[in-house]
Amino acid sequence: MAEAILKREQVRDYLLELIETHPAGAPIPAERVLCQRLSVSRPTVRSAVEELVNTGLLVRQHGRGTFVARAKITQEMVSDTGSMSLPQAGGTWSSRVLEHARIPAGARVGRRLHLSPAADIHYIARLRLVDGEPMALEHLHVPALVAPALTLHDMESGDFYDRLREHGVHVSEAVQSIEPTVVNDSEASLLGVPVLAPALLFERLTTDAEGRQVEYVHSIYRGDRYRIVSRLTLGASPRNSVDVQARVSGNPF
Amino acid sequence: MAEAILKREQVRDYLLELIETHPAGAPIPAERVLCQRLSVSRPTVRSAVEELVNTGLLVRQHGRGTFVARAKITQEMVSDTGSMSLPQAGGTWSSRVLEHARIPAGARVGRRLHLSPAADIHYIARLRLVDGEPMALEHLHVPALVAPALTLHDMESGDFYDRLREHGVHVSEAVQSIEPTVVNDSEASLLGVPVLAPALLFERLTTDAEGRQVEYVHSIYRGDRYRIVSRLTLGASPRNSVDVQARVSGNPF
Repeated sequence: MAEAILKREQVRDYLLELIETHPAGAPIPAERVLCQRLSVSRPTVRSAVEELVNTGLLVRQHGRGTFVARAKITQEMVSDTGSMSLPQAGGTWSSRVLEHARIPAGARVGRRLHLSPAADIHYIARLRLVDGEPMALEHLHVPALVAPALTLHDMESGDFYDRLREHGVHVSEAVQSIEPTVVNDSEASLLGVPVLAPALLFERLTTDAEGRQVEYVHSIYRGDRYRIVSRLTLGASPRNSVDVQARVSGNPF
Repeated sequence: MAEAILKREQVRDYLLELIETHPAGAPIPAERVLCQRLSVSRPTVRSAVEELVNTGLLVRQHGRGTFVARAKITQEMVSDTGSMSLPQAGGTWSSRVLEHARIPAGARVGRRLHLSPAADIHYIARLRLVDGEPMALEHLHVPALVAPALTLHDMESGDFYDRLREHGVHVSEAVQSIEPTVVNDSEASLLGVPVLAPALLFERLTTDAEGRQVEYVHSIYRGDRYRIVSRLTLGASPRNSVDVQARVSGNPF
């Protein structure tokens, strides 16, 4: 097992080197050739290629071979205490509303938004696209009381928080969690990826300056086109503490 | 399609509500019962349950049913400019070295560490455990020149960066990327999860106070037991910029 780990690591390294030094669309050598070149077994090569297909770095074209994939969109969290704005990550973001309803919050969403389960919320399912290509599927929940006059235009606009501001709602803070998941059949179809492709599940609860919960959203981001990059400052801190100064650029939200 | 999205959302909400109000190990109702209760089709229920099994919130026990899973370990990134230390997330972290070799860096790792491909590095594959249970698999690459006397004890110790400090290496900054992936067969076996279970892939390049690259590591974290939580401060910033003050607690690295 010990030897197998290092060998796998070396095969992975070799393939990543190919990927990083060749343009999108470039073919990688056939499995047979890789086995010979790297002196490893077929299963080891196949497994390494599979992993890179799963993380979206290689793409298989049925009957034609395996190729270097396009670069991912990077959600940057960079350390920069000086400047206030950074270029948006990736291309041009847009939104398409798939579903919009005014419905009771229900127990769970009600609890998150500090509402009665019977209180009305706006439920919005929308597709986020980058340069016209699907990137993420979002499910937003906004208390009707907070933004009674929310329009389709608001929900398809580039910056939802700016639109909320125009409605008198000033978002102030958010707690967000990130987990890995895989897309189900309906998400796969909407996002244009294979079923069970890796994805990131974001959940966010946003509060305004008065401490009101104004938005609960969960969204799923294609793993093959999206990655998060952060810059960490590791000071002479006590063991197990790390200070991070970061700025999120781009607005995937 | 529009109606299907909202219905799926409601089934998901219902199941999440059950999960959040019941202890680990509690059974969820049979699919048949859920279909009736929520007035949805079998495929819709099955798909929703599948998603929650994939993200580790529900666990299937063959022949017995589906149950609420244990809570995830949370990697906290919290906004707190005052205090310098926070309780470590989750339980007790430990490490087990699986492979250790002194080998040439190779082109790709060499490039990241600003080394010649022929320069020696320490390659360490190690399992990270929480309360004795596998949580992550890490592959570390440290230039031999940077830490010539690295021992097995160093690599199994709780805080690798403290051990580096004892060797005269003071880590200062890191750039880290996070992507979703799925575990391959060998990782599945080491981590004790099913093949193709969702996971987080971390890649990190760490530099010291002199700007030397001292560590390149990529690691894979179980998605069913691990999540990242961050607190965002959304100021009156220019469109598309978000200021984040955050601290990482716990040391999964």
